[in-house]
Amino acid sequence: MTDIQRFETNDRMSQIVVHNGVLYLAGQVDLDMSETVTDQTTKILERIDALLKSQGADKSCILSASIWLASMQYFVEFNGVWDAWVSPNQAPARACVQAELAHPEFLVEVSVIAASA
Amino acid sequence: MTDIQRFETNDRMSQIVVHNGVLYLAGQVDLDMSETVTDQTTKILERIDALLKSQGADKSCILSASIWLASMQYFVEFNGVWDAWVSPNQAPARACVQAELAHPEFLVEVSVIAASA
Amino acid sequence: MTDIQRFETNDRMSQIVVHNGVLYLAGQVDLDMSETVTDQTTKILERIDALLKSQGADKSCILSASIWLASMQYFVEFNGVWDAWVSPNQAPARACVQAELAHPEFLVEVSVIAASA
Repeated sequence: MTDIQRFETNDRMSQIVVHNGVLYLAGQVDLDMSETVTDQTTKILERIDALLKSQGADKSCILSASIWLASMQYFVEFNGVWDAWVSPNQAPARACVQAELAHPEFLVEVSVIAASA
Repeated sequence: MTDIQRFETNDRMSQIVVHNGVLYLAGQVDLDMSETVTDQTTKILERIDALLKSQGADKSCILSASIWLASMQYFVEFNGVWDAWVSPNQAPARACVQAELAHPEFLVEVSVIAASA
Repeated sequence: MTDIQRFETNDRMSQIVVHNGVLYLAGQVDLDMSETVTDQTTKILERIDALLKSQGADKSCILSASIWLASMQYFVEFNGVWDAWVSPNQAPARACVQAELAHPEFLVEVSVIAASA
């Protein structure tokens, strides 16, 4: 498997795995556990921007996004940040469902698959 | 990223994204919010058929399916429709878990990754 | 679609689908419904090892993993088995969320995407 590249790897996961022109990002949460959905979403999307940039890619390269909200009551607030962030006319496919996340303070988690630059 | 194609794109998501021979579909729900699991599943799978057809593909091209049910009590009813719909001897990989969906009336959501034709 | 290969296929799903150098595995559960999270996780990861081996691949080929726990109370116990199993310095991207699974006795489900050997 010499054609797999991994970045920010520890014993549990890599934050980015690159294979065959595709980037697989780990599910991103706001480790600062900001209080609001808006703040957590903003930080998560900034983190995704940074991870993509580390590979020479950007949000226009995102193919598909998996979104988990700790409560569907956060749907409108999350989408307010998401819709403004998405690259115009270049929105990815996505699915958004409710799920309890790894820590009760995590309100949002986002994972993406992207094309490498 | 000139090698990404998007279809049915709005500010939030694209219904299909095509990259490197792979189609990524958005999570499909029954926007008509039909009353039964059978009806919602039927409409969702018809919608997936139509999206795949728009790219010259069909259900035999599906590589992997993610299925969310608002309640696991729907598992048998969902599978009744799904099993009859799947292309014989060409079933995709799949995972099916429970999750609250974007609206309380949504009972089923299905997202697929497929090979382009 | 002559370039799709499927293995362990029934009317509902295939356990492995191969396309364009990528393996898509079905979500794996412990069909024996062992009592503990440790035992279920161990059996699931052995099953993933076996499925990958059937294609000449192994856990170092895993690009991305989706993990569902029936309760987030299982997070630490699951990670104890997972972290020890992961190929050193070759951890995949992953996302881990809570979800009710197909049967109440299923405590863990894991689905992976991997590079073919």
